Amino acid sequence: MNASKQPVLLAGRWQQSLSPQGGFHANDPTTGEVIGPCFPISGADDIEAALAAACEVAATLAAAPVERIAAFLDAYAAALEADADTLVALAHQETALPGPTRLRGNELPRTSGQLRQAAKAVREHAWTTPTIDTAAGLRAHLAPLGKPVLVFGPNNFPFAFNAIAGSDFASAIAARNPVIAKAHPLHPATSERMAQLAHRALEEAGLPPAAVQMLYQFDNALGLKLAGDTRLGAIGFTGSRAGGLALKAAADAAGVLFYAELSSVNPVFVLPGALAERGQALAQEFFASCTMGSGQFCTNPGVLVVPRSPAGDAFVAAATEHFAGAAPMVLFSQGGVTHLAQGVATLRDAGAALLAGGTAGEGAGFRYAPTLLSVDAGDFLAHPQALQTEAFGPVSLVVRVDGTEQMVAVASAFQGNLTGTMYRAADGSDDEAWRAIAPVLRARVGRLINSKMPTGVAVSAAQNHGGPFPSTGHPGFTSVGMPAAIHRFAALHSYDAVPDVLLPVELRDANPARIQRLVDGQWTCADVEVVA
Amino acid sequence: MNASKQPVLLAGRWQQSLSPQGGFHANDPTTGEVIGPCFPISGADDIEAALAAACEVAATLAAAPVERIAAFLDAYAAALEADADTLVALAHQETALPGPTRLRGNELPRTSGQLRQAAKAVREHAWTTPTIDTAAGLRAHLAPLGKPVLVFGPNNFPFAFNAIAGSDFASAIAARNPVIAKAHPLHPATSERMAQLAHRALEEAGLPPAAVQMLYQFDNALGLKLAGDTRLGAIGFTGSRAGGLALKAAADAAGVLFYAELSSVNPVFVLPGALAERGQALAQEFFASCTMGSGQFCTNPGVLVVPRSPAGDAFVAAATEHFAGAAPMVLFSQGGVTHLAQGVATLRDAGAALLAGGTAGEGAGFRYAPTLLSVDAGDFLAHPQALQTEAFGPVSLVVRVDGTEQMVAVASAFQGNLTGTMYRAADGSDDEAWRAIAPVLRARVGRLINSKMPTGVAVSAAQNHGGPFPSTGHPGFTSVGMPAAIHRFAALHSYDAVPDVLLPVELRDANPARIQRLVDGQWTCADVEVVA
Repeated sequence: MNASKQPVLLAGRWQQSLSPQGGFHANDPTTGEVIGPCFPISGADDIEAALAAACEVAATLAAAPVERIAAFLDAYAAALEADADTLVALAHQETALPGPTRLRGNELPRTSGQLRQAAKAVREHAWTTPTIDTAAGLRAHLAPLGKPVLVFGPNNFPFAFNAIAGSDFASAIAARNPVIAKAHPLHPATSERMAQLAHRALEEAGLPPAAVQMLYQFDNALGLKLAGDTRLGAIGFTGSRAGGLALKAAADAAGVLFYAELSSVNPVFVLPGALAERGQALAQEFFASCTMGSGQFCTNPGVLVVPRSPAGDAFVAAATEHFAGAAPMVLFSQGGVTHLAQGVATLRDAGAALLAGGTAGEGAGFRYAPTLLSVDAGDFLAHPQALQTEAFGPVSLVVRVDGTEQMVAVASAFQGNLTGTMYRAADGSDDEAWRAIAPVLRARVGRLINSKMPTGVAVSAAQNHGGPFPSTGHPGFTSVGMPAAIHRFAALHSYDAVPDVLLPVELRDANPARIQRLVDGQWTCADVEVVA
Repeated sequence: MNASKQPVLLAGRWQQSLSPQGGFHANDPTTGEVIGPCFPISGADDIEAALAAACEVAATLAAAPVERIAAFLDAYAAALEADADTLVALAHQETALPGPTRLRGNELPRTSGQLRQAAKAVREHAWTTPTIDTAAGLRAHLAPLGKPVLVFGPNNFPFAFNAIAGSDFASAIAARNPVIAKAHPLHPATSERMAQLAHRALEEAGLPPAAVQMLYQFDNALGLKLAGDTRLGAIGFTGSRAGGLALKAAADAAGVLFYAELSSVNPVFVLPGALAERGQALAQEFFASCTMGSGQFCTNPGVLVVPRSPAGDAFVAAATEHFAGAAPMVLFSQGGVTHLAQGVATLRDAGAALLAGGTAGEGAGFRYAPTLLSVDAGDFLAHPQALQTEAFGPVSLVVRVDGTEQMVAVASAFQGNLTGTMYRAADGSDDEAWRAIAPVLRARVGRLINSKMPTGVAVSAAQNHGGPFPSTGHPGFTSVGMPAAIHRFAALHSYDAVPDVLLPVELRDANPARIQRLVDGQWTCADVEVVA
């Protein structure tokens, strides 16, 4: 049966899965039809081979010249761009995401840009924070883990969060760790094509070919075994909370670092002044954000808090009209439709009233109608857990509140989220309410947003695509934004009384590359002056 | 029974334990006799009250002016120094550590110095890395967790790692989080005295009195329940591996950050040139480091790797003589003696030969003889787990190796450790061996040391008192050294399109305090220029 399946990128070359546990195909989400070739479901042999090969090259990669790492990241970025026609066509077919606007216009440039930002951080040593204490004879920096990083890519960004090309990938490689990519099985041909480009760029850069490997699928039991293998250094995971928490438990027990983006409802508070000022426009903005990419975003506005007032009623009526007037939207998979319907049922069981949608709707393929629900603040506060169920898709819950105090109470009921938003009036009349709600919301989110929907996530040094548990596993780290995202895959290395010649280049007295270093408490690009 | 026990520092005041589960006394380690008053073993009520009180003040503390936090840390440092006579007397009585040299001469100044370094970092905002991306409209910094931090202090540093005064305490407070200190029950009177000073300094600084609380003891089941409480933000733990891993599992499951210093054998490699150059002196240095503080250091050199050669034999003979000639040493507790004897038995069972010591020895109180064991590299490589058993006390294992290649093999068998040391010849003749061993050892330790015993741990920005699992829970963080140690107790906060007036002061355009900030990729103390 092997011959009929696509190869995996294993131990430095494209080869047949060693002992596949079956195969799978992608589907066209718009029709549900099977498309493309058969991809292998890997068994234990592939996993063991991948782990062994990654461990074998870990030290070589850790010692690789930074220019070679940066050259790989740059070359890979260029290769992705040069292959845009093919990649966009494959990804569009497998995900039904809009080709020109989303995939080509936004996601592919984001992906290549992110790889280039990682390359820049590598060349500047910006993520290593070299720190020198001349009096104590101590020098420290962030360094490779020296172990493989396992990356699980999500279903919703075939390029920008792909396990073989996204921020986790770029960050782990920038930190000079080998990557074992677990592609998402809903876009295997896209991932295969990207991995081919990555593999070629790796060889051209003169890096060990086993530094980047990719498997398409393996069962949960094997995934848990892999996650709990002490040979792994870290895991980057983007996906569902249930799957993520199971992997986290396995990783934690083995001392494997676990960075995850688990799920988030991204509360949006519409303050009264903003509502009065531009309620109708906000209803449109809310609908657009909630349904963009069929709502399949980690930063989708899943809960919107709006006053119980005539203006609030008008806002909800306008939003309801938008949701009710839209056709069912294509999701990535039948599983996604089922899961979304379950989410809506959970919300309704907990007391949410259906305002619009709530059905899979007509049409071929995997579809669900844009859905709006509503609940009173009192009910929300009575069932905060159930009413924070993430419904991954074009679904949002409106929470109706009376006054600032109740907004604060609702804010305090939220679990950890990636984002929290407040819409303020331009005239400053909401600022008192902002100041009351902000500290409560601030402590519960990674990114606090003013008067803007949360769906855009710029790749920036000041970004935080992260947040308190359970939205991620560690509130101190972001998965997007260079150089901070690289820190996740690094170990702190201190050198005590080690002579200059035996130090890593970036910690030596001479600093010909003019790296920014913290020397005796001051950031400087200068050499360390040697006192004779 | 309540009236007969010392009060706990709970919910902002000294009060009787709410429902104590019994009491305990300290012992004089030199005699084994009970000393001092009876301290309470806290029950579930104390823990719940402490957690509730800490949560109640978390937001206030997070919003506290940095000057107030810094003032507290400075005032507490001064109070500790002013109270040196009493503190040193109490600690000496409870731990038998040398009063003048260790406690007064080293540990107390280290403790107050560390608190002052934390205060300095707070004033400079040095730990928050304010990052501004003007083009993206994003601003980010590290901020308080907004939740309590639970600190477990160890037995071996009554001042410098005390749960109420050490680096975990200083770091958590510097990050503006409330602390629940779990004092070590082997020095309760010392901890009580320190907590009194902390409490007073806190009130004088105008901070919420419940920001610092202290319990003396609770049973393991309650400890696990507390560690797994989602209301906690993080745990700082220094102690045994078994206890630490149990707490880690509970914390991980609840998304509570767990920073630990679990145990470490701190391998020391004596390279042939260094051995030839100064073997006899090194034997003395080794013995001194291994027995300092009766060997009760996390960075005690527990395994020493030395060539099998005439010079190596002479080194081992000299070391054996030092160990054999020394009287049994006082440990902190009878439990410590028992545990140490078990550790020695484990090492012997795994094939280590006893060269000196190996008995509890004569004398009152809690004593164990300085103990040296030896094993061949082949045996070490055959039983690497058992032969890395930490024997907490004046015990070390010598591993005899043939040549550099075997040194590399031995290095590669080590688990994660806090430190790794190589002794090199002054003439550079060992540098080739260093370069062969260093990458392997480097990946397994937090601090790589040249020609110096690992027992000294300077409080420095370039320090790493940390290392790969299982020596700690995360290799990216250090528990000693400001400002890095503070990062452990911080959440990343990003602000997206938030107007200047609603930003935290350190992220605003104007920067009157001249904080070092990363603005558009450059470190600067300047204001952000507003483009009109």
